[in-house]
Amino acid sequence: MKCKICKDKAEIYLRSYNLALCREDFIHFFERKVKRSIEQWKMFTRKEKILVAVSGGKDSLGLLHLLGKLGYDVTGYYINLGIDGYSDVSQNKVKEFSRSSGIMILIEDVRVSWGTGIGDLAKKVRRPPCSLCGMVKRYLMNRAAVEFDAMATGHNQDDETATLLGNLLRWDKGYLARQSPVLKEKRGLKKRVKPLSFITERESAAYALMEGIDYIMEECPLAKGATSLFYKGILNQLEEKMPGTKSRFLKGFLEYQRNHPLIEEEEELVACKRCGSLTTSEVCNFCRLEDKIKS
Amino acid sequence: MKCKICKDKAEIYLRSYNLALCREDFIHFFERKVKRSIEQWKMFTRKEKILVAVSGGKDSLGLLHLLGKLGYDVTGYYINLGIDGYSDVSQNKVKEFSRSSGIMILIEDVRVSWGTGIGDLAKKVRRPPCSLCGMVKRYLMNRAAVEFDAMATGHNQDDETATLLGNLLRWDKGYLARQSPVLKEKRGLKKRVKPLSFITERESAAYALMEGIDYIMEECPLAKGATSLFYKGILNQLEEKMPGTKSRFLKGFLEYQRNHPLIEEEEELVACKRCGSLTTSEVCNFCRLEDKIKS
Repeated sequence: MKCKICKDKAEIYLRSYNLALCREDFIHFFERKVKRSIEQWKMFTRKEKILVAVSGGKDSLGLLHLLGKLGYDVTGYYINLGIDGYSDVSQNKVKEFSRSSGIMILIEDVRVSWGTGIGDLAKKVRRPPCSLCGMVKRYLMNRAAVEFDAMATGHNQDDETATLLGNLLRWDKGYLARQSPVLKEKRGLKKRVKPLSFITERESAAYALMEGIDYIMEECPLAKGATSLFYKGILNQLEEKMPGTKSRFLKGFLEYQRNHPLIEEEEELVACKRCGSLTTSEVCNFCRLEDKIKS
Repeated sequence: MKCKICKDKAEIYLRSYNLALCREDFIHFFERKVKRSIEQWKMFTRKEKILVAVSGGKDSLGLLHLLGKLGYDVTGYYINLGIDGYSDVSQNKVKEFSRSSGIMILIEDVRVSWGTGIGDLAKKVRRPPCSLCGMVKRYLMNRAAVEFDAMATGHNQDDETATLLGNLLRWDKGYLARQSPVLKEKRGLKKRVKPLSFITERESAAYALMEGIDYIMEECPLAKGATSLFYKGILNQLEEKMPGTKSRFLKGFLEYQRNHPLIEEEEELVACKRCGSLTTSEVCNFCRLEDKIKS
């Protein structure tokens, strides 16, 4: 198979575009696609300071690499969640990426303040690890983002469609109203953006490989049996039977959202008595978790 | 296992209700559930004349039986679509049901006017059989319903959730706006109701069996590989992993619809030059199909 652009040997075939590309032209195609998302959704400009949350995986490291390459003012942010046999590997990937790229990455380690990892903690407070981990990461990311203009995550199209399916099966109005490639700054929370929203998992993996990014390939061991992975399997079946389903599903939803905006009911927020972050109760979830750890 | 109501031997266990019931109490439970749907959704009253579309399957014959039993003014309506090895079997079931129940069923046969069945016709006009069949049935049903106050179909919860999933994957605004257990009379089309919208396929089959209704068990042979069956398989996987998903999905959507009504953009309709039914073009789809048959 030959590259459609330069007629050199193709290295990847993109079924939904019926397009074969060589390494160089795929990288160009990928970067232009992300750049267009950033511009069309008015995510950020080169004047803004962006904090990019990285896990050590292909999506987030690929995003940090790409934004750096495109000349955006980026800093990475990594949280070591103390997951045995996983977090230390991913932290090494992140450190190595920072060293070789010259992009600064802030590193936080929950074990420093808690003395234990998220897995043990989930058992202790009897919560599913993925839900607890999500809450902790959101809190720490919001806190770290204070010095920045926007916070970017590497969620790709497969992540977004799986989330959308879950939100629709439950018709979760709050989540549906907030599901967007860009969420404006609001009530003390920095702008949140997802530049890879329209990039498939496969495209993202190919980009990281072709750009020589060394990333952690394993799934998080605590995520085994997670609902989000189950939804991804369901959507893969749909995509296999009807190619283009994921992209149509997500874009259709976003267009629908634009024409029929969901008014998110604003809950009254108060400052947490402990940490001052905005919350719906006297003490925020994160501080309540810390209380439990200490008790 | 014992019946929760009367302590006799249970004949069915309903997982989503954690409820075991004997034959008599299940029938009572089922009929009350349908009656409540009819009342809550203001579908129709005992003063209205209802045309019930029947295929010979469990849902539609069960519905016709139940409505007759509850004292509603019902007439059945069957279309023989000329599907080899299928339509004649289903027509016999329908005729036998009419004879034993004393409920009148109007019978139409497409082969009388077209000289051939829907399968051949689909090949001739190069359309997928299910889509052509749907169009033909809607046209004929609308025409037959002229003498009635409402038209009822046996769509059950599994049908409705599969349709909803498809409509959401495509974000089909027109279909989403019209998906409801009851559609009011509008622009020459009679009121359309689906009293089994909240009844599962399994409950419907159990009801037909327990009430001794002899129905056709086979799926239509032309529906092999149909997308609607694929969606049902997907939803069964979701239900298996997370019991209650289908019901939550459908009820969540209907509640969402009520709070955020979708304004269906009204297309301008004109009377078809041939048959006078309302259509978006000069000649309606049905009359154009008949033109092709004659050509």
